[in-house]
Amino acid sequence: MTKKIIIDTDPGVDDALAIVLAFNSPELDVIGLTTVFGNVAVQRSTANALILSEFASYPVPVYEGQGAPMQRDTPHYPDFVHGADGFGNIDWPASDKQAESQNAVDFIIEQIRANPGQITIVALGPLTNLGRALEQAPDIAGLVEEVVIMGGAVHANGNVSPVAEANIIGDPHAADKVMTARWPLVMVGLDVTSQVLLSKDHTAAIAAANPTQGKLLHQACDFYIDYYRDELGIPGCMVHDPSTIAYLLDPSLFETLSGPIRVATDGLAMGQTIFAIAGRRYPYPGWENKPNQQVCFKVDKQRVLDLLVDRLSHPSNRD
Amino acid sequence: MTKKIIIDTDPGVDDALAIVLAFNSPELDVIGLTTVFGNVAVQRSTANALILSEFASYPVPVYEGQGAPMQRDTPHYPDFVHGADGFGNIDWPASDKQAESQNAVDFIIEQIRANPGQITIVALGPLTNLGRALEQAPDIAGLVEEVVIMGGAVHANGNVSPVAEANIIGDPHAADKVMTARWPLVMVGLDVTSQVLLSKDHTAAIAAANPTQGKLLHQACDFYIDYYRDELGIPGCMVHDPSTIAYLLDPSLFETLSGPIRVATDGLAMGQTIFAIAGRRYPYPGWENKPNQQVCFKVDKQRVLDLLVDRLSHPSNRD
Repeated sequence: MTKKIIIDTDPGVDDALAIVLAFNSPELDVIGLTTVFGNVAVQRSTANALILSEFASYPVPVYEGQGAPMQRDTPHYPDFVHGADGFGNIDWPASDKQAESQNAVDFIIEQIRANPGQITIVALGPLTNLGRALEQAPDIAGLVEEVVIMGGAVHANGNVSPVAEANIIGDPHAADKVMTARWPLVMVGLDVTSQVLLSKDHTAAIAAANPTQGKLLHQACDFYIDYYRDELGIPGCMVHDPSTIAYLLDPSLFETLSGPIRVATDGLAMGQTIFAIAGRRYPYPGWENKPNQQVCFKVDKQRVLDLLVDRLSHPSNRD
Repeated sequence: MTKKIIIDTDPGVDDALAIVLAFNSPELDVIGLTTVFGNVAVQRSTANALILSEFASYPVPVYEGQGAPMQRDTPHYPDFVHGADGFGNIDWPASDKQAESQNAVDFIIEQIRANPGQITIVALGPLTNLGRALEQAPDIAGLVEEVVIMGGAVHANGNVSPVAEANIIGDPHAADKVMTARWPLVMVGLDVTSQVLLSKDHTAAIAAANPTQGKLLHQACDFYIDYYRDELGIPGCMVHDPSTIAYLLDPSLFETLSGPIRVATDGLAMGQTIFAIAGRRYPYPGWENKPNQQVCFKVDKQRVLDLLVDRLSHPSNRD
C-alpha cells in the first residue's frame, strides 16, 4: 500500500531533488505540494512547485502557503545558495499550470481530518504552514500518521549560525510549536544530512540516464554544488531535503534517539534545536512534560546516496 | 620556572581535587585562591578554600569574591551534587585561618598588573570575579598570561540543561564577557571533562597513599560519586575542575580547536557556550570580530587519570 504524503516545500535545489525522489518512488503517493517562503519568496516557491509537479506521472496539485514567519521578521532569501530563482539561476520556463485556490494550511488540515491516521507530512522549509495548521486545528496532531522534518542540528554545526539550521531559524516560533506538538515527529537534521554528498558526477549521470527530469536537476545542482565547494571546500552538495524521503522509504538507513526537542526563539541561539534525551532530567526547565520525538543521529551514507541516484535516474511511470 | 596561578573557585568536591592537584605540582605556584558563589554560597566557598589552603606546603592566601551573578538571579546551590557543605556533607572542621581583607576582584587585578605576562588565571566556578575584574580594569586582558576555564559544552550535552553547563549558566553575562575578552583563553568544558571518570577505588587508593590530604578528598568524593551513579548510572565522578590543572601541566593531553566563543544569556539556551570554528562565516551575526579562543575537544583520558591519581597520592614538600 502506498503512503499518502503532503510535501511542504520552498523549492530550492535540494527540495527539487527530494520531490522528484518522491515522485519516482512507487511506495509514495504525493497528494499535494504545499508551499512556504524560505529559500525564496512564497510566490516563487509556488511557481517552482508547479514546475516540479509536471515531473510526476500523476496529477499533483500545488497549494500556496505562508509568506512570512509567525512572529519574527522575514529572513533574507539565501540567493547565494539556491540562486535568485531557487533553481541556481537557470531561467527555467514557467509552468502553464496554476496553483489551487485553497490555501496550504486549509488543505493540510482538511486532508489530515479526512484521512485519519493516513497522512504523512514531509516538511522541507520553515515550519510556518504546520505551525498555523496546529494553531487553527490542534486536533490534527492526533490524526496525522507522521511528521518528518528536514531541519535543525543537535551535535552538528548549524549553517546559519554555529547552532542554527536555515529552516528552523526561518520561523523558530513555528518550529518550537511543531516540535512540541503531540504528534509522531522525526527530525532529519544536519547531524545526518550534512554527511551525504552529491557530486557533479552524480548529477551528470542522472541527467544522462533520465533527461526529462534530470536536465533541471543537473542544471540546478551546478550552482548549488559550487556554493558548497566555494564556501565549505567540499566536493558536492549536502543531501538535506532528500534525506526525509529516504527516511520514509527505509527508516533503517538512519539511527535515531528519542526525547523532547525545543527551539530557541531569540538571542544568540535563535533557531537552535535543543534535544533532551529521553529520561535525562535537568535542573533548568523547558523540556519536562514535552513529548518525545525522534532525532536522526546516524546515517548509512552510501545507501542513502545509492538510493537517491538510482531513483532520480529512473522516472516512475505509475499511470 | 614555576607558573604563577590564581585559582578562582567555589569548592566544591572537584574544586578540592583540582586545588590539591595544583598544590602537589611543583610546576605551579598557587599565589592565591579567590572565591565565588557557585557550588555553595560564597562564604562557604571561602571557608572551604581556607580548609584546602592548609594542604599546601607553602602559604596560600584566600580572597573572598562575588556572592551573586552580574545580572541574573542567584541560582540554587546544587547541594544534591556537592552536599550542603560543598564537601559531600562530611562535617569537616573549620580552618583556624582567616581570609585576607582584600577582595578577590581587586587581588586579581593587582596581581595581573604587578606581574605582566606572568599570571595564569584558572577559573573553576561561575565567572563573576573575572567579569567584574574586566569591567573595572579592561587593561588586564592584555597583561594576563593565560585564562583557563572549566566550563561550557560545545558538542557534549550540558549538565544543567541539555546545552548549559553549571559554571557558565551560573553567570552567563560574566561568561560572555570573559569568553569575548581579548586575552588568551582555553575552555576546558564537558566535551573533555565528562570523559574522565574517577572511581571510589581511585579515591580509596589516594587516601591510603596520602592520608593527610587524601582523607578529605576520599570522604568528599563518596557523596559526589554516588550522585553520578544514581543520576547518570556511571561508575565514577567526572573530572571537571582537575582537568584545567592537567591542561596547565601538559597541554598535549588535550586537542583543541580555535574560534570565537559566545554565551547565550537568556531563554531556553541560557548558559550555552556557542563556538564558531575559526574561518567559518555565518549569515546570523554574533561571532564576527570576536577573538579566537581555544576549546578542548579531545582528551587522553588514561593519561589525565593517571596524572591525577599519581599527584594526589603524593603530597608536595616544596619548602
